[in-house]
Amino acid sequence: MLYFENDYSEGAHEKVLARLVETNMEQLSGYGMDPYSESAKEKIRRACDCPEADIYFLAGGTQTNQCVISSMLNPYEGVIAAESGHIGTHEAGAIENSGHKVITLPQENGKLSAETLADYLSSFYGDENHEHMVYPGMVYISHPTEYGTLYTKGELAELSDVCSEYGIPLYLDGARLGYGIAAKETDVTLPDVAEYCDVFYIGGTKVGALCGEAVVFTKENTPLHFVTRIKQRGALLAKGRLTGIQFDALFTEGLYFEISRNAIKTADRLKDIFREKGYEFYLDSPTNQIFIVLENSQMERLREKVIFSFWEKKDDTHTVVRFATSWATKMEDVENLAALL
Amino acid sequence: MLYFENDYSEGAHEKVLARLVETNMEQLSGYGMDPYSESAKEKIRRACDCPEADIYFLAGGTQTNQCVISSMLNPYEGVIAAESGHIGTHEAGAIENSGHKVITLPQENGKLSAETLADYLSSFYGDENHEHMVYPGMVYISHPTEYGTLYTKGELAELSDVCSEYGIPLYLDGARLGYGIAAKETDVTLPDVAEYCDVFYIGGTKVGALCGEAVVFTKENTPLHFVTRIKQRGALLAKGRLTGIQFDALFTEGLYFEISRNAIKTADRLKDIFREKGYEFYLDSPTNQIFIVLENSQMERLREKVIFSFWEKKDDTHTVVRFATSWATKMEDVENLAALL
Amino acid sequence: MLYFENDYSEGAHEKVLARLVETNMEQLSGYGMDPYSESAKEKIRRACDCPEADIYFLAGGTQTNQCVISSMLNPYEGVIAAESGHIGTHEAGAIENSGHKVITLPQENGKLSAETLADYLSSFYGDENHEHMVYPGMVYISHPTEYGTLYTKGELAELSDVCSEYGIPLYLDGARLGYGIAAKETDVTLPDVAEYCDVFYIGGTKVGALCGEAVVFTKENTPLHFVTRIKQRGALLAKGRLTGIQFDALFTEGLYFEISRNAIKTADRLKDIFREKGYEFYLDSPTNQIFIVLENSQMERLREKVIFSFWEKKDDTHTVVRFATSWATKMEDVENLAALL
Amino acid sequence: MLYFENDYSEGAHEKVLARLVETNMEQLSGYGMDPYSESAKEKIRRACDCPEADIYFLAGGTQTNQCVISSMLNPYEGVIAAESGHIGTHEAGAIENSGHKVITLPQENGKLSAETLADYLSSFYGDENHEHMVYPGMVYISHPTEYGTLYTKGELAELSDVCSEYGIPLYLDGARLGYGIAAKETDVTLPDVAEYCDVFYIGGTKVGALCGEAVVFTKENTPLHFVTRIKQRGALLAKGRLTGIQFDALFTEGLYFEISRNAIKTADRLKDIFREKGYEFYLDSPTNQIFIVLENSQMERLREKVIFSFWEKKDDTHTVVRFATSWATKMEDVENLAALL
Repeated sequence: MLYFENDYSEGAHEKVLARLVETNMEQLSGYGMDPYSESAKEKIRRACDCPEADIYFLAGGTQTNQCVISSMLNPYEGVIAAESGHIGTHEAGAIENSGHKVITLPQENGKLSAETLADYLSSFYGDENHEHMVYPGMVYISHPTEYGTLYTKGELAELSDVCSEYGIPLYLDGARLGYGIAAKETDVTLPDVAEYCDVFYIGGTKVGALCGEAVVFTKENTPLHFVTRIKQRGALLAKGRLTGIQFDALFTEGLYFEISRNAIKTADRLKDIFREKGYEFYLDSPTNQIFIVLENSQMERLREKVIFSFWEKKDDTHTVVRFATSWATKMEDVENLAALL
Repeated sequence: MLYFENDYSEGAHEKVLARLVETNMEQLSGYGMDPYSESAKEKIRRACDCPEADIYFLAGGTQTNQCVISSMLNPYEGVIAAESGHIGTHEAGAIENSGHKVITLPQENGKLSAETLADYLSSFYGDENHEHMVYPGMVYISHPTEYGTLYTKGELAELSDVCSEYGIPLYLDGARLGYGIAAKETDVTLPDVAEYCDVFYIGGTKVGALCGEAVVFTKENTPLHFVTRIKQRGALLAKGRLTGIQFDALFTEGLYFEISRNAIKTADRLKDIFREKGYEFYLDSPTNQIFIVLENSQMERLREKVIFSFWEKKDDTHTVVRFATSWATKMEDVENLAALL
Repeated sequence: MLYFENDYSEGAHEKVLARLVETNMEQLSGYGMDPYSESAKEKIRRACDCPEADIYFLAGGTQTNQCVISSMLNPYEGVIAAESGHIGTHEAGAIENSGHKVITLPQENGKLSAETLADYLSSFYGDENHEHMVYPGMVYISHPTEYGTLYTKGELAELSDVCSEYGIPLYLDGARLGYGIAAKETDVTLPDVAEYCDVFYIGGTKVGALCGEAVVFTKENTPLHFVTRIKQRGALLAKGRLTGIQFDALFTEGLYFEISRNAIKTADRLKDIFREKGYEFYLDSPTNQIFIVLENSQMERLREKVIFSFWEKKDDTHTVVRFATSWATKMEDVENLAALL
Repeated sequence: MLYFENDYSEGAHEKVLARLVETNMEQLSGYGMDPYSESAKEKIRRACDCPEADIYFLAGGTQTNQCVISSMLNPYEGVIAAESGHIGTHEAGAIENSGHKVITLPQENGKLSAETLADYLSSFYGDENHEHMVYPGMVYISHPTEYGTLYTKGELAELSDVCSEYGIPLYLDGARLGYGIAAKETDVTLPDVAEYCDVFYIGGTKVGALCGEAVVFTKENTPLHFVTRIKQRGALLAKGRLTGIQFDALFTEGLYFEISRNAIKTADRLKDIFREKGYEFYLDSPTNQIFIVLENSQMERLREKVIFSFWEKKDDTHTVVRFATSWATKMEDVENLAALL
């Protein structure tokens, strides 16, 4: 069976795992107060070219979104997201569970445009009744988006400008940030993300770690008592070493970027294969997720030998499916898939 | 100044107020345990032709929506509403504040169709990932809707059928229910509402009371310890007599229906006037809210003598405005407005 | 039947009701934007000798406590209260429902002492693990307390000093504030309350109004967008006139203070009667609540002719009961009770 | 430096880590749908002698308490705990953050007695005003307790009986359950825990795992859609293998019990040493936590060579401190500590 279902089907990158093993019996302070966590933070600060960044490690993406968003919003505020945004669709209502509305705006290829955002904000404050409405208190984007698409540097700058104008933070969900940065077409670097975003996270779960996301507050804007808020949401690991050591390994000698490139390289090859064989692309994604339209009987045949994801029904006889590569994908498996197609 | 801004600009209907005055010095038990509250409930049961109805009085609409919805949903569920629904737009996030998502579906003239609902529910349960999504746990409609439009009896029956099929309750927000029932074109009666809805409320604040909404559970389906839940949300009046006596008066000798008809009669006359004078209707509403498109300079001139509501910008030179009548509107004021137009 | 069960068994004081009647058909703006609400606020500012006070009207006590406390606390904070405090015992968990812990400290006669408070705060910040604990973010007291007892001016000043030292607001629940101020033994005036407290409320429901409490922020410290927060909790009355007009009447020509004195006068007479007849006082309360220990069979006999409240079991043969007077209590009823005793 | 600060200072037991390494590159389904998680569940069912047990893996203790408690309580209910209980003291208000009160009752040596519980429940339902109070909806205990003490089988049975009588579940926090079961004096086995408790968790974080707790529902009483609730609280690991594989290793050939015994053996030796040398025990704990009273200057001297935990101030010159052993403690370190004492 070939496995292109998602980007979290293996454990950790071998170098990450090796560090866990090597340090295993060291006696370390809990709750992230260990030297590996500190070292990881320093390495991330350097990679972000943001010496003042304040960094926290959490276990997973939904948890991170919930902790960050609920800590940065005032109780009367909601978070703006594209209508395809993960927080509004596939996080089981985690944001609403924390008391806040996800205010959805139209998207294009998974992206929220600065223009759409500006129009909404201008219209909100122009409405005489806005005192009876949920105030927009933050903008959430993901990069790559749910569709694997990417913002350009210019687009991030524009979104950042609109946010600044209205005094609300821009938050970037980087569950797959490594793959975004490794994409060939992108002009966005990690320092760019740190510059344009008020807060973002660098995803580990989908990029080489067993678990873990690194939240980066870039503007000396960490919510007061953020550790207590993390604890209060049940998200503070007693053995903070688990995430600290993994991120320390990921940000040693550029490992995070290097392994991200493997996902891009294998995805690009796979896209070439689909293209050569005349498959229909649902949309054009420059990262590790490939959305293909399959005729249903063809899909069923392929499923006997390959695991991929159902995305959505296209029409009565066609389905959109997703093939994902990752840091762990072997080129050999891509070629095996080519042979099958 | 002529006042057509909304339907809650006066105090209470004189008969309602008179009952408060007459009973004022009686020493009554608190928290709705007084005989007037009991009598009001009995009268409402009869008016609904629903002897098993379980009834509670709350102070206002947002409070009622929050108490009812949060008490009937499971924590992993959200409430479905038309995207124009009041709970999703003008209640400052009260539903999300209680931990639940408002799942919005497309509307037509403020209404949610059974077809739209059925499609959504079928698609939700057809999605393999729905374990990571907010479960639909209730359907919210309002009657009249935000646009003053009305469901037909057939439409209510269809919505009720879809809800039954999926085992979720149908909840009707009746902030202006009196005006809906008094409308000339409607085939929906109060007993129909009680039959098709699992829970609904009869609005008092906008129909003759100083404050107060009567929540009606129609299917022996009151959430356990509902009084404690009301208390927990700060919504239990110590002097329950305040709402009990008012509803007792409103449901004595059909007062609620009679005063509702005044709103319809004056609105119908006003619609005739607008029609005769060639004004553009934004949409056709059979109840007490009239939506008119005004050219902006015309709007400004009218504003010097009449108070009405801004609804939304139509284009650069035109605005949609709302004129509302109520139980208290005098025909004389309508004629005065006619003279101005 | 004689009625000494509580202080909210009648409707409104006749002058309050008269104002509602007189203004009933005036067309007023909603949500507290009417001139009567403005006038009431101005009169309360004067009565508090606090020109900068920012004032809001809410419907009831639990609602007020929930709105004020949840709006002033940060998410990682709880509110300190005496273990007998209303918010921790008889509000159905309204504070916890808003996400915050009630941190209870030992009480004496219902009161929280500055020493107890200072010890707790010093100990909290001395604990190395306090990052994993709920931060104290506000101090809640009530005046009169649950036992009808009163703080002295000196005690309020001391509590205020401790709060200032730790940078947390002092909040006074004045559900029965009128009776506290009218008590003969007190040296605390309304301006004193405004001086020592960061926020407090003046209770209407138990002192002459049908409903309503006036929240007073005294230090230019109103939480941002407080109206939206009220709306979000379902506590914003569409007909704000209902509370505004009542408080306007209550603060016209000292009515609030005058009617409060009636409760004290009748309570003092009743205390004399109990004392003369040799009844055992459970504790000494200077306000309108009288706590008496009755032998159980005696209690049962009295219950046939008088309604009073069960407070708590004292031992197998004795019970603590409460007799309450109010603005509405007639001296004649007190004498009738004397005759029965 | 000798390290007796807590029981989570090392990584994972070598056999646990080895399994993570061996399985690392296997491609597995996410969210706990992998075969190792299934195998771990089956092994735990057998160890509990409870074939119908329904098991879920979460990452940490506070998270587990929050997910379990908030999922099993109704909105109007709180959870009963001893006043020293972890959920009420050192979880930063995680339970209140989920909307529920922690109802604290007096403890003895960290334990809640069936009598104290029964008295409270009987008194609650005997109170006429309980409709305005938080309903008791669950009983929380920990075993070992915060003080390392243990319930006897008889005490668990009694608590279980009281819970059954009132229809509320008994929940046991087993963060250190291994150490409780390995204690020499105990008569409580894992099957006993499964028999008397409606739900409990088996702690991994403090007993040999990098992270992870196994929640066991024993009475076919799993809350509906529990996975969605876990997701909604941000507690669903994408790589469920991380906890599944670790628990699979821990419950292979009795590893969990074997490594727990190491903590007891080293703790018992340490207790003997303290006893021999005449140290004062703060209380008598049969598990891996030892509470000793030190004179302050003695404490400071010891701190130069040993890391232990501050527990609480005893008086001006003495402090209660805690020494903890664990699955990883070496007897050699205990003897080194003996030499220092």
